[in-house]
Amino acid sequence: MRFLHTADWHLGRVYHGLSLLEDQARVLQDFIRLADDVRPDAILIAGDVYDRSVPPADAVRLLDVTLTRLVVELRIPVVVIAGNHDGPDRLGFGSGMLECAGLTLCGPVSAAPRPVVLRDAHGEVAIYPLPYAEPAMVRSLLGDDALDDHQAALAAQLQRIRSAHVPGRRSVVVAHAFVVGGAESDSERPLSVGGSAAVAAGIFDGFDYVALGHLHRPQQAGSPRIHYAGSLLKYSFAEVDHSKSVNLVELDATGGCTVERLALPPWRDLRVIEGALDEIIAAAATDAAREDYILARLSDRGALLDAMGKLRTAYPNALAIERPALEGEGSGRAGADHRRVRIQDLFASFYAEVSGCPMEEAAMQTVQALVDRLEQEARQA
Amino acid sequence: MRFLHTADWHLGRVYHGLSLLEDQARVLQDFIRLADDVRPDAILIAGDVYDRSVPPADAVRLLDVTLTRLVVELRIPVVVIAGNHDGPDRLGFGSGMLECAGLTLCGPVSAAPRPVVLRDAHGEVAIYPLPYAEPAMVRSLLGDDALDDHQAALAAQLQRIRSAHVPGRRSVVVAHAFVVGGAESDSERPLSVGGSAAVAAGIFDGFDYVALGHLHRPQQAGSPRIHYAGSLLKYSFAEVDHSKSVNLVELDATGGCTVERLALPPWRDLRVIEGALDEIIAAAATDAAREDYILARLSDRGALLDAMGKLRTAYPNALAIERPALEGEGSGRAGADHRRVRIQDLFASFYAEVSGCPMEEAAMQTVQALVDRLEQEARQA
Repeated sequence: MRFLHTADWHLGRVYHGLSLLEDQARVLQDFIRLADDVRPDAILIAGDVYDRSVPPADAVRLLDVTLTRLVVELRIPVVVIAGNHDGPDRLGFGSGMLECAGLTLCGPVSAAPRPVVLRDAHGEVAIYPLPYAEPAMVRSLLGDDALDDHQAALAAQLQRIRSAHVPGRRSVVVAHAFVVGGAESDSERPLSVGGSAAVAAGIFDGFDYVALGHLHRPQQAGSPRIHYAGSLLKYSFAEVDHSKSVNLVELDATGGCTVERLALPPWRDLRVIEGALDEIIAAAATDAAREDYILARLSDRGALLDAMGKLRTAYPNALAIERPALEGEGSGRAGADHRRVRIQDLFASFYAEVSGCPMEEAAMQTVQALVDRLEQEARQA
Repeated sequence: MRFLHTADWHLGRVYHGLSLLEDQARVLQDFIRLADDVRPDAILIAGDVYDRSVPPADAVRLLDVTLTRLVVELRIPVVVIAGNHDGPDRLGFGSGMLECAGLTLCGPVSAAPRPVVLRDAHGEVAIYPLPYAEPAMVRSLLGDDALDDHQAALAAQLQRIRSAHVPGRRSVVVAHAFVVGGAESDSERPLSVGGSAAVAAGIFDGFDYVALGHLHRPQQAGSPRIHYAGSLLKYSFAEVDHSKSVNLVELDATGGCTVERLALPPWRDLRVIEGALDEIIAAAATDAAREDYILARLSDRGALLDAMGKLRTAYPNALAIERPALEGEGSGRAGADHRRVRIQDLFASFYAEVSGCPMEEAAMQTVQALVDRLEQEARQA
């Protein structure tokens, strides 16, 4: 049995003030063409279909058109789960009525997820869609107060699936999660602030293939059976070196799986160009991809008049300019990366910023003690 | 053939700061029960399903649950059109895939509306869904610059339908419009500011039944074949004397139709109570419907301390208080009813309010001349 596994479409995403919808529409046309060539037994879309819970109307229309072509015209069953960016109720509209068309749309998490069961010459394959859900939601749904983080919540859901699974059936899980050790870029919204979002790959043991969404770089995650498809497009400059693709998954008679990445090139690429502004503009003359989205890292040290205006004469879709030669490596830059800073340091730097003077040692110790206590309580809760 | 015709559900409506969703959920349960009893051949929902183009997530869920029960459990075909309150793209999501389930969801207007064709012992019935659309939209869709108001736009769409209609088939139109002479309340959002929203009943000539939405009072509109179903609930105090209902439409072998109103009583009614605050509170003791939504028109003339707080000890869901004894009949009241005031008077009263002195005669005449010219141009355009 063959699947196409994709994720993180983020339809309706606006980047540097620019809607990427036309780029998304183009690459989805390519995806539909690819699906038509490959003719998989199902398409798995592992969450973050939209970029936000209330997507713009034209993103809704694009998803509608795309799914209709896959499901009605190509007659390929499609399984979609909500990711942390999606509004589960909005995304899930019509799910009970859409099944007859071959579309499984899992918005809100369910206490007893029903599998989509497909069949080939070797028997049945059960596909379990596990939409993203906050641990608190899973806790209340399953009535288990011990589920205090993503690891526990997801493990409990998977355990339920295992216990209801018909033995002998091959099995696929579609989920939206951050598996430990995965490579983040910076356009994923953290699942949880302050740690504990990560789940161990081991909680997926026993499933033949795990189709993940959340991380934007296509990658294997902890086991040859667990894969991120990566996002549809490069959604931040942290992703410039990614090659976006979808996974073609082949499940054999006994559940062995092979995964092949099929490239999905963008219409307009997202690139970083470095150099002096004049050199960049001069070199653009021989650049065939001047429509690309550009971050220019200028080496110029002096004042530049209307640098963006000049850059756009060469690259009309230039999005941003950085001038590393004028920036230090001080606290200002560290602030941009606040997710990697310890809470107590973040607090101290906030204090210094607001009060204009560094936090005193006694106050630092109070904060440190408070953070320690909270973290300890969180571990014990 | 039998239809249930309903309209103007306005799911997600907030009135005086209060969400009516629970009331809507209850009355929709009654509607589902009624549909189960009546077992119509189809259910027609004539627009304004939601109260706004981006409805709250729980309104989306309520619509989903309701339609799923009608379509999947009761297996009754349902035809829904967008009204002027609905976001056509959002409402129309999945329409191409939902047809197989028996749900026809018409969001954006289409150049060539395909009928839903049903069949009984006497032959076929074509149901034409005509979602609400601005004249400008219809103008561009049909490529006809002469369509400058609702009357012209709707008439052109109906003419297209007539010319493609299979002769001999009985026909039903589902539309969202303001037919001339209909009784407005004040919770309908005007289709057009400054006239020209109204359409003549005659444009619907030749169709066996016209299922309308927009006006909230159930009523016949210009012909025994054209009916408003009215809204699901009373959505403003202007509707306190309405009896909300749905239309049971019976179409005979030759297209003759009879229409019966089936009452749909609310869980909590919307009422106006008049009298002195103390009397109202005393009388509440023998009022069995103290959970109703109340507008209290107090006859008290003196100062009242925390009138709403006191009223709510008797009527916990009291929404508003009016004190007509303290209000004149001057310009302040007229302002509340600005839709019935002539533009020039509205302008003069706005001028007086802002400047603190009445508009001078010369200025009045200038405004009058301007309004005359604009109105004349609008008539000639």
